[in-house]
Amino acid sequence: MNVQDLIIKKRNGLELNREEIDFLVHGISDGSIPDYQVSAWAMAVYFQGMNERETRDLALAMAYSGDVADLSAVSGITVDKHSTGGVGDKTTMVVIPLVAAAGVPVAKMSGRGLGHTGGTIDKFESIPGFQVELSHRQFVEQVNQVKAAVISQSGNLVPADKRLYAIRDVTGTVESIPLIASSIMSKKLASGSHGIVLDVKVGEGAFMKEQEEAIRLARAMVEIGRGAGRQVVAVITDMNQPLGQTVGNSLEVQEAIDTLRGEGPADLEDLSIILAAHMLVLGGRSSDWDNAVTEVRKVLDSGQALKKFMQMITAQGGMLDFNQPDYELPMAEFEAEVRADKDGYVSGLNALEVGKTAMLLGAGRERLGDNIDYTAGVKMAKKYADYVTAGEVIATVYSNDKARIDAAGSRLLNAYQFSNHRPTPRPLLIETIK
Amino acid sequence: MNVQDLIIKKRNGLELNREEIDFLVHGISDGSIPDYQVSAWAMAVYFQGMNERETRDLALAMAYSGDVADLSAVSGITVDKHSTGGVGDKTTMVVIPLVAAAGVPVAKMSGRGLGHTGGTIDKFESIPGFQVELSHRQFVEQVNQVKAAVISQSGNLVPADKRLYAIRDVTGTVESIPLIASSIMSKKLASGSHGIVLDVKVGEGAFMKEQEEAIRLARAMVEIGRGAGRQVVAVITDMNQPLGQTVGNSLEVQEAIDTLRGEGPADLEDLSIILAAHMLVLGGRSSDWDNAVTEVRKVLDSGQALKKFMQMITAQGGMLDFNQPDYELPMAEFEAEVRADKDGYVSGLNALEVGKTAMLLGAGRERLGDNIDYTAGVKMAKKYADYVTAGEVIATVYSNDKARIDAAGSRLLNAYQFSNHRPTPRPLLIETIK
Repeated sequence: MNVQDLIIKKRNGLELNREEIDFLVHGISDGSIPDYQVSAWAMAVYFQGMNERETRDLALAMAYSGDVADLSAVSGITVDKHSTGGVGDKTTMVVIPLVAAAGVPVAKMSGRGLGHTGGTIDKFESIPGFQVELSHRQFVEQVNQVKAAVISQSGNLVPADKRLYAIRDVTGTVESIPLIASSIMSKKLASGSHGIVLDVKVGEGAFMKEQEEAIRLARAMVEIGRGAGRQVVAVITDMNQPLGQTVGNSLEVQEAIDTLRGEGPADLEDLSIILAAHMLVLGGRSSDWDNAVTEVRKVLDSGQALKKFMQMITAQGGMLDFNQPDYELPMAEFEAEVRADKDGYVSGLNALEVGKTAMLLGAGRERLGDNIDYTAGVKMAKKYADYVTAGEVIATVYSNDKARIDAAGSRLLNAYQFSNHRPTPRPLLIETIK
Repeated sequence: MNVQDLIIKKRNGLELNREEIDFLVHGISDGSIPDYQVSAWAMAVYFQGMNERETRDLALAMAYSGDVADLSAVSGITVDKHSTGGVGDKTTMVVIPLVAAAGVPVAKMSGRGLGHTGGTIDKFESIPGFQVELSHRQFVEQVNQVKAAVISQSGNLVPADKRLYAIRDVTGTVESIPLIASSIMSKKLASGSHGIVLDVKVGEGAFMKEQEEAIRLARAMVEIGRGAGRQVVAVITDMNQPLGQTVGNSLEVQEAIDTLRGEGPADLEDLSIILAAHMLVLGGRSSDWDNAVTEVRKVLDSGQALKKFMQMITAQGGMLDFNQPDYELPMAEFEAEVRADKDGYVSGLNALEVGKTAMLLGAGRERLGDNIDYTAGVKMAKKYADYVTAGEVIATVYSNDKARIDAAGSRLLNAYQFSNHRPTPRPLLIETIK
C-alpha cells in the first residue's frame, strides 16, 4: 500500500476501506508516514469528509494504536462522560459522585489542559494531596470499592491521535467533523467504559460555534460509539456564557463541592443532573431517563453524593477537611472586585473572554509544562439576564500575582454586555441525540 | 504573518494577497515553513484554486526566489519554447536551429529528465563532446554569434519551485492547474526570454489526459506570462501516440538531424514548423504567422537550419562529423525487431507504454543520478492509422543490455492496438491560445 495513493483516493472523494485506514493509522502511530503526507491527507479529509464507516474505522484504529484500558475486572457496567470543552465546565467533578452514589461505577481517565484553565486532572490536583497516578490494579480496586476513581490518561493512550492532532493543530485541519469525532471517540473507546455520555458545547466559548455543526459532531460521535458496540448519548448544551459562577481550578472544585452540598448555581446543578441521569440509564441502573433524574436528585438531596465525593477524594489521598461543614479550599492572596459601569441587564457574557481573563490571571497553560496558579480565576456574581446597577459588584478576580489583577479586571468588564431590555432566556439544554 | 492563518484563509476559499504569497514563497524557499504546512497549503490550493492574480504572483515570487537569467546583453528579442512533456518529443532540437537560422536569438536553458527518456539536456549530451555547462558570458556570446545556445539550468533556478514540487510530488497535490502553471512559468520567467511559446501536450502519453484540462492549463500559463510582461502563445497538441518515430536519446538526436535534412517524419516536421513560426512572430521577425511559416520553410528547405544546428553543436564542442553527408550517431550494440501478430490498421499506439518500454531498455532515469544508455530506445516503423500485415516489422528496440531486449519487444507489441477498420485521423494541432 502506498500513502500517496491513499491521499489521492481521498482527495478524489473516494472511500478508504478498513485496511487502508489501518495502514494510515499504523504509519501515523509508528512515524513511518511523514508529517507532510499526514497533513495533506488531513486536508483532503477536511474537503471530502469521511462516511460513517470510515470515521468509525479511524476511531477504532486510533483507539487500538496504544494502551487500551481493560475494565473487565470492574463489577457492573462502567460509564464515562466527555465534554468537548467549555469555560467553567466542572460538571465531571459533580457528575462522578452523583453517578457513583447511585451505584454505577465510574472509571474516569482525564487529561491535563492547555488553555484558559486546566483540564479535569489539573482541577483535581488543586486539591492538596490528591493523587492522579494510580496503577491499573489500584484504579480497578478503587472503582470496585468506592464506585469512582479519576486518573490521568496513560502517556501511551491513542498515540496515533496524539501525533495526528499535533499536525492538524498547525496545518489548518482541525475543523473537520469526522476528524474531531474520531479523535474524541478514539480516546473514549480506549478508556474502556461501556456507556458514554457526551456533552457537546456550542456557542462563543466552545469549539463549535454553530448549533448545526455541534449536532453533526454529536451524531458522528454517537454513530462511532454505537458502531464500536458502546452505548452512547450526546447532549448539545449552551456555552455562550461560562457554566456556573467560577472559572479557575480550585475555585471550580469549591463550586463543585457547593453544588454537591445543594448550594451550587442552578445551571451547573441542572446540567450535572441531566448528564448523571443519562449515565444511570446507560449503566443499567434506571429504566428510563425520568426515573434516573429522580434517582440522581435523591443522592444529591440526601447528601450521599457529597459523601461519595469525600470518599473518592480521601481514597486518592486528597486532604480536604470535610469534618468542618463549611470547609473551603485555600484562596489566592490577591483579589479585586469588578463593578458594573452602567445600569442594565447583562445581555452578553462572552465565555471565551472570561476564559482568557482566567488565563491572564494564571489559571491556565499556554504551553505544555507551564505552571498553573490553582487559586487564580474568576467568580461571576452576575450572569446573562441578571439586572445590575452601575457600581454594583458583578465579579471578582483572583490571583497570587498582584500585577495581573488590574488588567484582568478591566478585561473581564469588557466580557460583559449590558442592555436596557431584558434579554430572551437561552436554554441550557439544546438537544439530546441518542 | 502566520503560515497557518494563510492555510486556513485559502482553505476557506479566500484570496491571498501579494504580500501573503511572497511570504509563503520566501518561507518555502528558505525552509522556514515546514513541509507539513507546505503540503497542507498545496492541498487547500488543490481544492480552492487560485485566481489569475494569485497564480501570477506565485509564479513571479517563485521566479525571483533564486537566480534569474539576465539576457539584456543579447541583441534582439530572445524567444524560448517549453513543452509540458511527451514521449518522443524532440522538437526543441529542431526548433532552435529553425528559429536561429531565421534570425531570432534562442538562449535556451533546459533540464535533465526523470522518466522514460532523458530531458533535452540529456539528449544533447548524447552527442559526443557536447558541453551543456557554459558560463553566463560564454552563453550570451554564443547567442550573439550563433543565435543559438543550449545550457543546463542553473542549480539555483527557482529553488522555491524545486522544494514545492518535491513536496507536491509525494502528497497528491501535483494535479492543480494554478500550481502546475506557476511552476512551469516560474522557470520560464527566470530564464529571461521575452517571448515564450508553450506546447501543451494532451493524451495518453501526456501529463494532461483531457483536452479541456490542457486548455485550462494553457490559458493559465498565457495569463501568467502576459501579466509578467512577456509575449506568450500556447498550442495544444496531441500526445496519444509518440511524436515522430523514435524514443530514446541519441535516436531522437538522429531523428532531429534527419528532420533538418528534410527527411524526418511529417508530424515532427509539422509541429516543429508550427512552434518555430510562433517564435518568429514573438521575436519580431515575421509580421504574422503565415509569413513566419514561409520563412521557416525557407530555412528548412535551403539547409540553413541544418547548418545552424551544426554551428551550434560545434560551438559547444559536439563532435558530429557533418562533413560526411549521411553521418549517423553511434548505435546500440543490440537490437531486435518487433513484428505485428495480426493484420490490420494500427488503431492505437499507447505513448505512455512506448515510453515505459524505452525506460526498460535503459533510455531513462528512475532516480536522480541514474545512468542513461544514450543509444537505448525504440524506433517505430508503423504508427497510428498505418496498415500492417501479420509478421511485418512494426518497430525495432535498441539497448546495450541484451537481457532487456526481449521483454521490451513484447511490451512494445502490447502498446499497439490493431483494428480491421481504418481509424479516424487525429489532428496533431488541437488549439492555439494567444
